[in-house]
Amino acid sequence: MNFRSDNTAPAAPEIIAALTSVNESAAPAYGEDQWSKRLNERFSAVFEREAQVFTVASGTAANAICVASLAPPWGAVLCHREAHIECDECGAAEFYSGGAKLVLIDGEAAKLTPAALEEGIARNARGIHSVQPSAVSVSQTTERGAVYSPAELAALGRVAKGAGLSVHMDGARFGNAVASLGCKPADITWRAGVDLLSFGATKNGAIAAEAIVCFDPRRAEEIARRRKRSGHLLSKGRFVAAQLLAYLENDLWLKLAARSNAMAMRLGESAGPHLSHPVESNQLFIKPGPDAIAKLRAAGAEFYDWGDAQSGEARLVVSWNQSEADISAMSKALASLR
Amino acid sequence: MNFRSDNTAPAAPEIIAALTSVNESAAPAYGEDQWSKRLNERFSAVFEREAQVFTVASGTAANAICVASLAPPWGAVLCHREAHIECDECGAAEFYSGGAKLVLIDGEAAKLTPAALEEGIARNARGIHSVQPSAVSVSQTTERGAVYSPAELAALGRVAKGAGLSVHMDGARFGNAVASLGCKPADITWRAGVDLLSFGATKNGAIAAEAIVCFDPRRAEEIARRRKRSGHLLSKGRFVAAQLLAYLENDLWLKLAARSNAMAMRLGESAGPHLSHPVESNQLFIKPGPDAIAKLRAAGAEFYDWGDAQSGEARLVVSWNQSEADISAMSKALASLR
Amino acid sequence: MNFRSDNTAPAAPEIIAALTSVNESAAPAYGEDQWSKRLNERFSAVFEREAQVFTVASGTAANAICVASLAPPWGAVLCHREAHIECDECGAAEFYSGGAKLVLIDGEAAKLTPAALEEGIARNARGIHSVQPSAVSVSQTTERGAVYSPAELAALGRVAKGAGLSVHMDGARFGNAVASLGCKPADITWRAGVDLLSFGATKNGAIAAEAIVCFDPRRAEEIARRRKRSGHLLSKGRFVAAQLLAYLENDLWLKLAARSNAMAMRLGESAGPHLSHPVESNQLFIKPGPDAIAKLRAAGAEFYDWGDAQSGEARLVVSWNQSEADISAMSKALASLR
Amino acid sequence: MNFRSDNTAPAAPEIIAALTSVNESAAPAYGEDQWSKRLNERFSAVFEREAQVFTVASGTAANAICVASLAPPWGAVLCHREAHIECDECGAAEFYSGGAKLVLIDGEAAKLTPAALEEGIARNARGIHSVQPSAVSVSQTTERGAVYSPAELAALGRVAKGAGLSVHMDGARFGNAVASLGCKPADITWRAGVDLLSFGATKNGAIAAEAIVCFDPRRAEEIARRRKRSGHLLSKGRFVAAQLLAYLENDLWLKLAARSNAMAMRLGESAGPHLSHPVESNQLFIKPGPDAIAKLRAAGAEFYDWGDAQSGEARLVVSWNQSEADISAMSKALASLR
Repeated sequence: MNFRSDNTAPAAPEIIAALTSVNESAAPAYGEDQWSKRLNERFSAVFEREAQVFTVASGTAANAICVASLAPPWGAVLCHREAHIECDECGAAEFYSGGAKLVLIDGEAAKLTPAALEEGIARNARGIHSVQPSAVSVSQTTERGAVYSPAELAALGRVAKGAGLSVHMDGARFGNAVASLGCKPADITWRAGVDLLSFGATKNGAIAAEAIVCFDPRRAEEIARRRKRSGHLLSKGRFVAAQLLAYLENDLWLKLAARSNAMAMRLGESAGPHLSHPVESNQLFIKPGPDAIAKLRAAGAEFYDWGDAQSGEARLVVSWNQSEADISAMSKALASLR
Repeated sequence: MNFRSDNTAPAAPEIIAALTSVNESAAPAYGEDQWSKRLNERFSAVFEREAQVFTVASGTAANAICVASLAPPWGAVLCHREAHIECDECGAAEFYSGGAKLVLIDGEAAKLTPAALEEGIARNARGIHSVQPSAVSVSQTTERGAVYSPAELAALGRVAKGAGLSVHMDGARFGNAVASLGCKPADITWRAGVDLLSFGATKNGAIAAEAIVCFDPRRAEEIARRRKRSGHLLSKGRFVAAQLLAYLENDLWLKLAARSNAMAMRLGESAGPHLSHPVESNQLFIKPGPDAIAKLRAAGAEFYDWGDAQSGEARLVVSWNQSEADISAMSKALASLR
Repeated sequence: MNFRSDNTAPAAPEIIAALTSVNESAAPAYGEDQWSKRLNERFSAVFEREAQVFTVASGTAANAICVASLAPPWGAVLCHREAHIECDECGAAEFYSGGAKLVLIDGEAAKLTPAALEEGIARNARGIHSVQPSAVSVSQTTERGAVYSPAELAALGRVAKGAGLSVHMDGARFGNAVASLGCKPADITWRAGVDLLSFGATKNGAIAAEAIVCFDPRRAEEIARRRKRSGHLLSKGRFVAAQLLAYLENDLWLKLAARSNAMAMRLGESAGPHLSHPVESNQLFIKPGPDAIAKLRAAGAEFYDWGDAQSGEARLVVSWNQSEADISAMSKALASLR
Repeated sequence: MNFRSDNTAPAAPEIIAALTSVNESAAPAYGEDQWSKRLNERFSAVFEREAQVFTVASGTAANAICVASLAPPWGAVLCHREAHIECDECGAAEFYSGGAKLVLIDGEAAKLTPAALEEGIARNARGIHSVQPSAVSVSQTTERGAVYSPAELAALGRVAKGAGLSVHMDGARFGNAVASLGCKPADITWRAGVDLLSFGATKNGAIAAEAIVCFDPRRAEEIARRRKRSGHLLSKGRFVAAQLLAYLENDLWLKLAARSNAMAMRLGESAGPHLSHPVESNQLFIKPGPDAIAKLRAAGAEFYDWGDAQSGEARLVVSWNQSEADISAMSKALASLR
């Protein structure tokens, strides 16, 4: 019953097969191979708009390059207090941007609201003496597993654009969001004002395949430079491209995400009143108290504590290949707490 | 007859097999898996000394993190004018280090000599108004395919250490150097004063596997932080670790390197008087003039021009899997120029 | 009745006289003049300990160089949410440090408490994925005009040092603090654990004279480099040194500060119940509501609104040369609000 | 006979008087005072074009902010191998720009030629793997005391603009250049393609007054941000503004510069065949050999050695207030070497 994280999961067989298939002969380096060169077209089709795609080695790199490309060194990037870029990337956004500042906003289930965003922008626009609000970064799904609706994102986008800010989306679990909403990828990205998307595949079945999807052609050159300069332009780029092509092929990404979402919802039903938030994707948060947490661990469940140390809250993440047996056993364990 | 670069080559079958084998089940993320945890011990055995290993996604990342860990932002890093860190990394060393300066030194076959290094240090130590010489970076093999002997490196190391400088080695083709010299890896690294090594596997048969090998324990924490912060700590680290373990297993790395070295030397014999430098590893440089270069291309050879535009010089790189047929055909083409 | 800020005040006659007196003949540049060379000794006497002094052009420069010298790029610097380094320096700390993060702590009157500091450190020490708490920065006087007692600072210093953090003090109004407490400068700096002090003279009677006072000799070389590299090592350094020597001569700094402190306290007595905080230095904060604020302005008073926009709160700063007439008129205006 | 540097000189009486005159009463801070607000208009008149002026504390700061505003972090800035930004600013350009690279060009008397500039640009434009030529920085006067004619600068400007590069001028001794040429300031700045000028007053009679003169309104916001963020926006800005206004008043700057230029030329006539370069401003370089250098020192002359250590070359700088006696004595000493 390992629910530590979806990044403990292996890669899907389709991904491994894709790696093998591109290994037959020599291919041009640094993204000039035939697979890398198909990425722009492939993503443009998925997103119903011309997009430029830049593969990188990690979600941290994708996020940091995006943030740096949207905010000058004296900029402020508004994000949720629990955002991955704030809490889990060891200051990558500050490093890549040359010292931009993250301005933290509170909100239920790690979501931003238009009102909170407006307030955050207003509070930090104080002329030459303060940093300059330049971008907002939202996570879809959020760090609490919540999913913004297209309308919610469009509302945030309007506030941002109205104040002259750009919009970045941390989509480390973007597939889970699309699968959960049943929407078009475009509905929660550029149609809602998103300029740059960190598109994650690693957690949902790839080995190491993350991409920046750029909807604003004016940013492309800068992104390319930042990627090269940070060591994220790989010489044998075909192996990342192959993963991403296989990930999109036949909607593999949505099938894998839909499966882990569904299993998480089953766990959520078992957890019932102990849920911290409604389950909307493949992560669930429960707060049954310290004793119950200990009981779950004693039953063999593995997961991380969450939030304040003594609060008895935990995060469970369902992986794309989580076994039926795991889910049944965990459901039972959760139900026993009620 | 594709001799463009060894990074156009596919991965060796042992590397692909290793990837597949670690994909069976869940494993802890961020380097806590069993394969990643074996890296320190494995490399320590190869290098006959306790070493700490940090995998990264590219040689550029390895080099830049090393340089930044050896030089403060106001430091100067001395390197050859043709060094990869100067010419081919889009300013990565400057980015990671917060603006350290590369001081360029000339030398035959892209090698530094102790005298040139001494002169470079002296010329750049001018008190508070100038940057402060802090490290030297050498490439082994060099960007011209030359190989430093253990004695040559030890002499450079003595100059560096005598002046209070640290030593970095860009070992993008480290295996080719060891195979060429028939020495111990230790002889051309820490025994010669090298503090940090960029250990490359990608060009010599891996998919994407580069590592920083740290011989100075005081630098380890800083390297770990810089790696995380730049997005090079991968969540599914086992896939990189597996490549490196397979690469070292049964001396695969030295076998692959020895083969490409030997084939390059065969080409060198055919090129004879047209060689720019003696062939010492898997790269050769020929300077038969523009007409001869055109003739080679007409015969189906692929390679990059090198040096000044109109000089009629070219670089040929032999890959680990270069075919016997390629070598025979190219040998013939080269011999025909004489 | 201009109470906008003490940096609107002219320079004291002693400061102007000092400038003139060092202008008689040629003098070595870049701090090698006789006046600059006396600074270390002079400050060491004032602080009862060997100290190294680095003049800079602004308090922002002093603060940013200090923070960068105490925290690595991946470090976290804990400070109050209203700290000048957070709110008023356009990201200077992030710029100079290469992207360190400011972690914000709440506290009455812009003061940190040991408990809040401990909690802030604990909340932000999460291993490799988060930035690393490295330093704490306190303002003395605070941005709300409060003054830490020696015991309060010592308690903060113990928490910081116990957790391995260094301590920086933003002393833009350091003279006002010393005059208010009647203590030795040492009591609220190195004796309480302060490693680096931004010592401000500009607000309290100088033209442009700020200094970093370094109590930790191991930091001196780094500070010198950062100062040079940021353009704060002045060629004609004698003119800054002369200001600082005159400022310390015959306790001019404490006399000027004592005067403005005393006048602020008189205003505080008039404001009575409208004070946001007790008056402890030359700044006072009143919260009589929007109508009363408008009334003060109508009476000819000039000052800045403070805090939330509609709260009807204001900051009054008394300058070293504030006239008796100003104080009388303002006292009357404040008293009329009661 | 102190010819060490013009920054060892005191300030001109007019500058001191200006400081005193603005010290009478309170004035708004951070450049909102009446003197600072006149700077744009005053410089616009001098330069016959609308310009925006940003005062900073040092020439290093002016240069570094200019370079950072013209080149992205992945940019290359082409300059002479002896340029102040390369040799004497401890990496300030790299710091402010976030790691841009200085590409060094050779040229007689520290001057760039159009051909050398073209070659430097071509050599460094190698696509994504190398930094991107973005700006050229010229020094007027040069570090060897030479002066570019308007036509020479225009030719450089055409090469730069033709290749898409911006142009920065390091005018630490700009007044000496204008006085030497007898031209309009516009002729050697924006009319020749200069986008940003570091305008120095400190060496030529001020205390500490340097300014960035911005001829490209699109750069102004960025310059303002970089200035604030680096601690160069002074709270009591009037004292710098007053120096600059006095410096321009009645052509004081040109009178002072013309005087030191003329005296340097007298020394040049005495030095005759020992001159390294013709004398064109207030610096002269002589190369009479080590023995003659020692003889000059024995006669009481103070100056810096220049160039290679044992070459017996020296730099003499004439200050605005150099005495007639100094010049006579030095002329005699120089003549005695012939």
